[in-house]
Amino acid sequence: MKQTYIKDFAVWEKEFSYSFPIQVRFSETDMFGHLNNTVTFAYFEQARINYLKSLGLMNDWLNPNGERIPVVADLQCDYIRQVFFDETIDVYVKADSIGNSSVDLHYMAKNAKGELVFTGRGAMVQISKKTGSGVAWTEEEKELFYKKTKN
Amino acid sequence: MKQTYIKDFAVWEKEFSYSFPIQVRFSETDMFGHLNNTVTFAYFEQARINYLKSLGLMNDWLNPNGERIPVVADLQCDYIRQVFFDETIDVYVKADSIGNSSVDLHYMAKNAKGELVFTGRGAMVQISKKTGSGVAWTEEEKELFYKKTKN
Amino acid sequence: MKQTYIKDFAVWEKEFSYSFPIQVRFSETDMFGHLNNTVTFAYFEQARINYLKSLGLMNDWLNPNGERIPVVADLQCDYIRQVFFDETIDVYVKADSIGNSSVDLHYMAKNAKGELVFTGRGAMVQISKKTGSGVAWTEEEKELFYKKTKN
Amino acid sequence: MKQTYIKDFAVWEKEFSYSFPIQVRFSETDMFGHLNNTVTFAYFEQARINYLKSLGLMNDWLNPNGERIPVVADLQCDYIRQVFFDETIDVYVKADSIGNSSVDLHYMAKNAKGELVFTGRGAMVQISKKTGSGVAWTEEEKELFYKKTKN
Repeated sequence: MKQTYIKDFAVWEKEFSYSFPIQVRFSETDMFGHLNNTVTFAYFEQARINYLKSLGLMNDWLNPNGERIPVVADLQCDYIRQVFFDETIDVYVKADSIGNSSVDLHYMAKNAKGELVFTGRGAMVQISKKTGSGVAWTEEEKELFYKKTKN
Repeated sequence: MKQTYIKDFAVWEKEFSYSFPIQVRFSETDMFGHLNNTVTFAYFEQARINYLKSLGLMNDWLNPNGERIPVVADLQCDYIRQVFFDETIDVYVKADSIGNSSVDLHYMAKNAKGELVFTGRGAMVQISKKTGSGVAWTEEEKELFYKKTKN
Repeated sequence: MKQTYIKDFAVWEKEFSYSFPIQVRFSETDMFGHLNNTVTFAYFEQARINYLKSLGLMNDWLNPNGERIPVVADLQCDYIRQVFFDETIDVYVKADSIGNSSVDLHYMAKNAKGELVFTGRGAMVQISKKTGSGVAWTEEEKELFYKKTKN
Repeated sequence: MKQTYIKDFAVWEKEFSYSFPIQVRFSETDMFGHLNNTVTFAYFEQARINYLKSLGLMNDWLNPNGERIPVVADLQCDYIRQVFFDETIDVYVKADSIGNSSVDLHYMAKNAKGELVFTGRGAMVQISKKTGSGVAWTEEEKELFYKKTKN
């Protein structure tokens, strides 16, 4: 497997329990006739936020007066199969590993035939708006990530 | 002329004195092989803001502690000729008419051959963040709009 | 009503029978904290194509070897209320009037409270790929538009 | 350095000789007040294509009747500093290593102060439209990549 973040695909795949369906828009295709490859990251974002909402883990991030904010540290995507207009893609999300104030989120996208179309990952860090430093997850928050991943 | 906001094209065209060049991105094309028609409004936005900056008319709109904010009331675009990947389009902007707290901005886009590719317009209103009501332009601000349009 | 394409709002509103739900993405907001106004046209596009599919009216438009293609002649949007991240917006579509080879599509978007958030319209023309001229709708196609609108 | 694709930053940085300037659009910001992180990949794409054009290396990729097509195999981005509306970002591109039919392109983005704002990389493969297999670079094409990188 070219993706270094996937040790054993069968194990990795089985750990996903959340997915979000996204219909490919016409405006998201390009002149090569398929989904433009810059768009998968918007799909990751939409799936990630809905995953975090499903965990009850949006904290006070969207509150303008909140003290904490999530920051995306990096993002990557590996393109496996072409995706076309009007397909509905299931974007799976899981917490692959949890740090003190960060989490490594992994993504797996499949088409309606169940074929793998792209995979990805990216670290997200919870920081303080004032200091810019990481704000540690509480034990409860860590539990929420674990619960959804291993079941 | 199908565009009802253009009375006399020759006169209308001559009143533009500001333009902003935009290179069509690959990600902005669609599977029909040309610029996707939802993208022209992002071009209008980029040209509009650069036009307002050129007038010295961004006021305190981007200041989070500012009191006034510009609101786009409506937008429209008429598509004349297809636009393709890698073309550089000149997007012209002018204040067509100025109200008490609003301005009707018109847009004209031409390709490198000087051919008209799309036109448009949209009203922008300056409102108070607190009350949501229109905040009148000062005489100086109105002058800035007029100066750039009629010369 | 500022929208000149709406004669009688109560009548106009009642003629819609198709709607498509769209969840506002984080990447579609802007630094003013709401849905960026250039994005509503991508919503119109997604709702329009799903509406045409629901009518059975995509013809051979997406077939690379097809002879006909739909062309968007113009688009406009009137912004009524702010739309925010994570809201789900219902985008209604109807054929307001049907020409020989064209159709005037109208759009109405409402938030979860049933409040009007934006409206719009735009003409679409079916043309021949070879000649670029309009290709007349068949009587069956016109019927499909009418059926969905008046019921 | 957290980026595993950068061995020695000073050496890596010096190997870039091409850059493309991009002005951050208002529509590319999000409600957190900065450039939305899904947009950097569209910047990479625009810089990459202008880089390939500058090398004379677009081959017949955009020709609908051409036999070869470039495919993006993967993409990744590491976010270093926030990027804000209206900044102009210089996006540097280089061929970091060249395979038989592929090339590993690296990206470095700096703001007007010369500060590093994000970095990235991604493999691109030239394939045959008919067979889907890799099409080897000619010696001349490899030379073009090398010339621009090491000087």
